[in-house]
Amino acid sequence: MTVVERAAESGPLHTQIAESLRARIDRGELTGGERLPTTRDLAKDLGVSRSTVVRAYEQLAREGRVEGRVGMGPVVRCCPSPSPEDRVNWNLLLTPRVQEPDSEYRQVLRMLSQTDLLSFAGGLPSPEFFPGDSFQQLADGVLRQQGTKLLQWCPIEGYPPLRSWIADRIGCPMENVMVLSGSTQGIHLLAQAFLEPGDTVLVEAPTYAGAIQAFRGAGARLVSSPSGPDGIDLERLDATLDRVRPKFLYVIPTYHNPTGGSLPIAKREALLSLAARRGLAIIEDDPYSTLRYDGPLFPSLHSLDRSGCVIHLSTFSKSVFPGLRIGWMAAPTKLLPRLVSLRNVIDLFTNSLAQGSLYEFCKRGMFDAHLQHVRNEYRVRRDAMAAALHRYAPDVSFDVPHGGLFIWAKIPNAVDARRLLEEAIELHLGFIIGALFYAEPDGRDRIRLSFACHPPDAIADGMRRLGLALQRSLASGADGRVHETPVAGVVV
Amino acid sequence: MTVVERAAESGPLHTQIAESLRARIDRGELTGGERLPTTRDLAKDLGVSRSTVVRAYEQLAREGRVEGRVGMGPVVRCCPSPSPEDRVNWNLLLTPRVQEPDSEYRQVLRMLSQTDLLSFAGGLPSPEFFPGDSFQQLADGVLRQQGTKLLQWCPIEGYPPLRSWIADRIGCPMENVMVLSGSTQGIHLLAQAFLEPGDTVLVEAPTYAGAIQAFRGAGARLVSSPSGPDGIDLERLDATLDRVRPKFLYVIPTYHNPTGGSLPIAKREALLSLAARRGLAIIEDDPYSTLRYDGPLFPSLHSLDRSGCVIHLSTFSKSVFPGLRIGWMAAPTKLLPRLVSLRNVIDLFTNSLAQGSLYEFCKRGMFDAHLQHVRNEYRVRRDAMAAALHRYAPDVSFDVPHGGLFIWAKIPNAVDARRLLEEAIELHLGFIIGALFYAEPDGRDRIRLSFACHPPDAIADGMRRLGLALQRSLASGADGRVHETPVAGVVV
Repeated sequence: MTVVERAAESGPLHTQIAESLRARIDRGELTGGERLPTTRDLAKDLGVSRSTVVRAYEQLAREGRVEGRVGMGPVVRCCPSPSPEDRVNWNLLLTPRVQEPDSEYRQVLRMLSQTDLLSFAGGLPSPEFFPGDSFQQLADGVLRQQGTKLLQWCPIEGYPPLRSWIADRIGCPMENVMVLSGSTQGIHLLAQAFLEPGDTVLVEAPTYAGAIQAFRGAGARLVSSPSGPDGIDLERLDATLDRVRPKFLYVIPTYHNPTGGSLPIAKREALLSLAARRGLAIIEDDPYSTLRYDGPLFPSLHSLDRSGCVIHLSTFSKSVFPGLRIGWMAAPTKLLPRLVSLRNVIDLFTNSLAQGSLYEFCKRGMFDAHLQHVRNEYRVRRDAMAAALHRYAPDVSFDVPHGGLFIWAKIPNAVDARRLLEEAIELHLGFIIGALFYAEPDGRDRIRLSFACHPPDAIADGMRRLGLALQRSLASGADGRVHETPVAGVVV
Repeated sequence: MTVVERAAESGPLHTQIAESLRARIDRGELTGGERLPTTRDLAKDLGVSRSTVVRAYEQLAREGRVEGRVGMGPVVRCCPSPSPEDRVNWNLLLTPRVQEPDSEYRQVLRMLSQTDLLSFAGGLPSPEFFPGDSFQQLADGVLRQQGTKLLQWCPIEGYPPLRSWIADRIGCPMENVMVLSGSTQGIHLLAQAFLEPGDTVLVEAPTYAGAIQAFRGAGARLVSSPSGPDGIDLERLDATLDRVRPKFLYVIPTYHNPTGGSLPIAKREALLSLAARRGLAIIEDDPYSTLRYDGPLFPSLHSLDRSGCVIHLSTFSKSVFPGLRIGWMAAPTKLLPRLVSLRNVIDLFTNSLAQGSLYEFCKRGMFDAHLQHVRNEYRVRRDAMAAALHRYAPDVSFDVPHGGLFIWAKIPNAVDARRLLEEAIELHLGFIIGALFYAEPDGRDRIRLSFACHPPDAIADGMRRLGLALQRSLASGADGRVHETPVAGVVV
């Protein structure tokens, strides 16, 4: 009996055999209850090894097309219907936070997902500067020397040498540090640890869009204090604290996303005094401080904290390799073990191969050398963007940031940023609209431009297109299209 | 002026300089307000490069010990107090799920954290079989060819070639698959997607301890149906569904953790009919099906599902490298995009270097070859454990599993498993007690033994110690210590 009539023409032998059998079963040529040849017989028949037939049969069994002992010759099962229909009402089962209708956040991400955009949207470092060769040698050496250990298990708190390096770097004991799979994970973990539906969280206006999503997702009510070139407005914060009792303040004190602003040292001390006086917990998100181009050096809130008020989050994703997903958290001594227990439920621990390789990269001074290199490059790009904005979009105003990745640009009041983005996308230009960075409706006259990922000539070209998009928006604004909500049902 | 009197004796130069300055600041020899030399002057003074001094100053600025422009010579800040005191009442801010008192789960994990145990506790593959050399070559090649790409960003759903390979493997369209950072992350993600406090989840008794922790952590009420060598009791499940409306059933149908049992094919079909009839959502956790030693091949519930009732979770952590943290989820077409959006808030995406390397490992057939190898080795170890139990602990009864990593052993009624573990640890032997696998108080006469991680002679030695611990427990039981709750305030 020859069940396999014609093997598919490419791919491994066992896949070809499985494909041929699958087709015959699905066409009904081999029917439910029919026994296939033993592996020995079919192997002989086809002139292949028995293990090849075993693999093909195993694949079909995994798919539910055959059953029974493989060696004896499995039995064909009833032909499955081609496409399952949902008998479960999944939507009803989801929690409200997952059921949420399409938000402006998702709409904008979709608009920006075109591949042919000259994009200034992402908050990413530029891959052209990745020290790929040297990192590859490190990963190689790490696997060679301790491959088995690194591919097995790792403490939840992190690979000890990396944990220790991070602790030294930020100037705290190793016991206060946990390695994370990126600092976004830290935001999620802290939302899990602290937030129940109805809790209040203080944020800056504007602030990191991902944090807004995470805190909202946990059911929190967000209350904003304005934040500008000198960081958060402390008077407003203090006044807010007279009327609300938040679980914590989430703040980005250095080279803020999106504003690029930084809290001066005196304001850092004032914020910490305020926190100590009021017992306010602070989550300091600090992904950008390594990317300093000029201006003063800012100590982190965490390093200045003498009252145990601060949980510190940071990451390697902005300074070196986002793809490795390595960040960290530093938290007060009594708190960290609780957060480690929670992490155990969330995803156990961070990829140990990435941790090991990154540790070598740091230990050998390659991280610092890399920082020095990208700072110089990004400084040039920042200046190129500032110059090109002045030239091509003189109606746009902005502060030149001393570090980080972003220029936070104010567009003329007559233009709505969402409308501008639509014009920009027509010109194959991408950026993020300001509204996404606010917990409350605001920022319609703001856009965020990342200057890191393109060389100066591409930046100039992009800002030229921005100027053109602005002109077009202003012209269409004259037709009465200004201030309309561009898409019905927008949720901000 | 010489501020740096004596450099530390080891480490990079900039670290030595920073250490020396740090010590002088902390001792009060350099006081608040004092200006340090310019980088140029200090570099000249010490005979080092200016960039070395810059780095040292930057480190001190990060620590909050100096401030101001580095080049101009930074200013010493007021000497920080050595150890911060918490002015925030962190415990009050934590949600109840994180505040929970010490559970038996954590107590047992602590008992097992001794390094000198001959441990049969972990649910891990044996690192001695890791194909480290060949994997190292792959990782090397992957970084060499596409390092920049892989170290940058990756779609939330996963590295497309790996996602596609997984989809082919489990026989579903790529659009239904999301790569996860381990399947534990999948359990957490689904708990986030579906559970609100007070919701009901159906589980097996016993079931995976981590799932109990995750669902409890989300505030769910767990309702159990018994599960044995033939998997979950469908009559009990059906009866339970007459009185509760769960969000989903969480089930491990193949080589169950901890029982080793598997749901026969007819029962799989019956469970799926029941689910379709009742609109019951099923989370199928399937980490062990690749580890088959003998007996029938089981198709996953997911592959048999024609009603869109099943979300499938699996992982590479049990079959190959736990340290890479790669698992996956397959979910119905309409549901997956919602889960992807949620993942975006949780941790963005899975380490792309690990995904790329693992994809090469799979594509080149090395994963299948590895599976064949470990199946043979683990089969030998399973048989060695069964034989040694019969020989050294004849009072213990168990079913020999056809796959997976565990023997689920019943100890004599007169012995409490927790008491037995205490005796075992005296003999430097480790395992997991049964109670941790139950959502309700149960399993005091059960222990879970993992046979994968030791060669047959060590397994024999371990089971000899188990026999001895059993004898001692039985003897101490005669002193009236049986059935006491061994630790006050145990929360199961």
